[in-house]
Amino acid sequence: MIKKPRGTEDLFEKKAKEYFALEMIFRNIADLYNYNEIRTPLFEDANLFLRGVGEQTDIVNKEMYIFSDKKDRQLALRPEGTAPVVRAVLENKLYINENLPLKLFYFGSMFRYERPQKGRQREFTTFGVETLGSKSPESDSEIVCLAVNILNSVGIKNYNLYINHLVNGDKRKEYIKELKKQLQNIELCDDCKIRIEKNPLRVLDCKIDQNEFDDIIDMKDYLNDEEKTYYRNFKQNLKNLGITFIEDKKLVRGLDYYTGFVFEIKDKNNLTLIAGGRYDNLVNELGQVDLPASGWGLGVERIIVNLKENEIFLSEEVCLDAYIIGLSEKAKQFCNILLLMLRSANLKVDFDFMGRSLKSAFKQSEKYNSKNIIIIGNNELKENVVILKKQNNKTEKKVKFENIVDEIMRGN
Amino acid sequence: MIKKPRGTEDLFEKKAKEYFALEMIFRNIADLYNYNEIRTPLFEDANLFLRGVGEQTDIVNKEMYIFSDKKDRQLALRPEGTAPVVRAVLENKLYINENLPLKLFYFGSMFRYERPQKGRQREFTTFGVETLGSKSPESDSEIVCLAVNILNSVGIKNYNLYINHLVNGDKRKEYIKELKKQLQNIELCDDCKIRIEKNPLRVLDCKIDQNEFDDIIDMKDYLNDEEKTYYRNFKQNLKNLGITFIEDKKLVRGLDYYTGFVFEIKDKNNLTLIAGGRYDNLVNELGQVDLPASGWGLGVERIIVNLKENEIFLSEEVCLDAYIIGLSEKAKQFCNILLLMLRSANLKVDFDFMGRSLKSAFKQSEKYNSKNIIIIGNNELKENVVILKKQNNKTEKKVKFENIVDEIMRGN
Repeated sequence: MIKKPRGTEDLFEKKAKEYFALEMIFRNIADLYNYNEIRTPLFEDANLFLRGVGEQTDIVNKEMYIFSDKKDRQLALRPEGTAPVVRAVLENKLYINENLPLKLFYFGSMFRYERPQKGRQREFTTFGVETLGSKSPESDSEIVCLAVNILNSVGIKNYNLYINHLVNGDKRKEYIKELKKQLQNIELCDDCKIRIEKNPLRVLDCKIDQNEFDDIIDMKDYLNDEEKTYYRNFKQNLKNLGITFIEDKKLVRGLDYYTGFVFEIKDKNNLTLIAGGRYDNLVNELGQVDLPASGWGLGVERIIVNLKENEIFLSEEVCLDAYIIGLSEKAKQFCNILLLMLRSANLKVDFDFMGRSLKSAFKQSEKYNSKNIIIIGNNELKENVVILKKQNNKTEKKVKFENIVDEIMRGN
Repeated sequence: MIKKPRGTEDLFEKKAKEYFALEMIFRNIADLYNYNEIRTPLFEDANLFLRGVGEQTDIVNKEMYIFSDKKDRQLALRPEGTAPVVRAVLENKLYINENLPLKLFYFGSMFRYERPQKGRQREFTTFGVETLGSKSPESDSEIVCLAVNILNSVGIKNYNLYINHLVNGDKRKEYIKELKKQLQNIELCDDCKIRIEKNPLRVLDCKIDQNEFDDIIDMKDYLNDEEKTYYRNFKQNLKNLGITFIEDKKLVRGLDYYTGFVFEIKDKNNLTLIAGGRYDNLVNELGQVDLPASGWGLGVERIIVNLKENEIFLSEEVCLDAYIIGLSEKAKQFCNILLLMLRSANLKVDFDFMGRSLKSAFKQSEKYNSKNIIIIGNNELKENVVILKKQNNKTEKKVKFENIVDEIMRGN
């Protein structure tokens, strides 16, 4: 039998409802913050990620699903959502002044070819937001506030917010030179021995060597005055908003495009739920337009693992207004009409399409948690009535055809 | 500059809202009919479609995006939704008796490498339903009723429903033999000359030769008694439900898996909006489980073209409860808190993150269709008040900090 591809999932019943319930919470809160949805293609020109995310990142280097179309164009299933949004903003010229700041959100599948693990599949779902065009501590504290607001609304507690501010330009080179020097005095894992040359910042992100960096130099000592003021105001805003945070000099993120503040929200198992930061150069690198920006992405599967661990259930139980049973061919044909009548009145109803025995059909109506059972046989057809049973009190009565919609509606 | 891949679209602003509005209508109606969502991966083992959809179909033959993962597994971006749903039903053993009939819906991207045209991109969106486990005229008329119900709810008129019933087994062979004979006497297009041998039913579907088949034999003459009775009851049900239809002997659908009734709903430009039918053997072919089934798919982009032509607008206008302007650094920091307070009260508010001039900020609040404007400078901070302007009557007044949430809520 053909199976689903490794690292993918089928979602149905409660799990599908949970995804949708989360999506609705995200959408509602994003709407209060005046973010608008953007949907970009599931695949893009592979160069977008090479140039946007960075050729030396694991995402691009090892984890992309790349394929050619029949004209030999290199396409990639999108491994992250920010570069496509920036591409769409540029291509559709959404950056005209009266649109700024562009506040955009997206919800959808991303793809990375990595070892599947708890809360991280090869096809995974990201909810993300991007604010493009503004650069102010208020804009940055807003997106962090939105992240925290969403976690709180979903019911997740016990998370920690880590923040840092990256250094740029010549000062970054200075810092990296000193960082390399210090790293050479530390016994690192094999991967990091290579990373030191290619992407030394990423060494600080290494899960294996994590405990070796307590005395490492702090990037923030290299910030210029403007950056220092900005970062101080940003932190003050977070405090004003009642958001507690931990400063972490090792927080550099796995993507190349960040230029300012960065943050991660981790749960008590140290899994990252939400991560992002400021990326002021990405739009320019991809399209020669100056557009400062910040944003974050949330891992939906990580949230779902967390909810499960904390026994939080977002999906509602199925509940029918009525379950209909037809006892003859003629009765079944009439039931078909009754179903339409009830559904047209916005009632959720279903029918025993399997021709079950009465006993087994009653059981089915219990499974659906149906408030009412409607039974129709040839006698009822002749009398223009149906038999109506309430699920909860087991009484039954006859109801005339013309009163049945009303009766079910009043009974709710 | 890097562009989006050919045959894909960026959806934002009104277009993104329109997609979501449609998705919500589909979901709400599917829920009334007691359909539950299923989400399957965006890619599958390519063999699923070779075996499920048929090797001789255009979809599989010419239009699939196939790629290999690093272990050389052949994967395909899904070109349609039914085979994946069947695969998921089998793999997750959802077919236990008490679940039957399984009534499932899905909404998401499909991928076909074909020439992009109006209402049909290479990445396109399908809303589909499948009913698995039941075989009854009521089950089939229900799914057609759901299709019609959805079009009516969206506001689409001027569509036609075409139906037919396919013939099976030995009788199908007999029919095809006779069909081939008759087709050989007709001057066909080049493609169809090949199709006659490989997949003669598909010839009837050919857009070029469409007018040549008026006198062709009718498949329904080959139906057995059971099939004839079933089809008659199905048509009677449609009539009872007030659904008008046209019988079309040329309607055979482009997919191999159909075995019973088939239908298409076309708009006045003859574009197919919804299509489907009964496929009683597909589950068995893919997983040796007997599970009769029927279903359909709806092309979301086709619906959107139709809505546009008929000037039907589903997306609501953006409308803010308040737009906030801060006149100094200190005021801006306070605005950050005010934003959180208002949003926590479920109000949709935004802030001038761009530091615009007052005049330009007012214009911005008009663009957002904001009901209120809140202005805060250093004087207001000292007095613990804000200036509140109503968009519609241009009056302004001072409101104390502690009353502002209340004031905005009452004003709505």
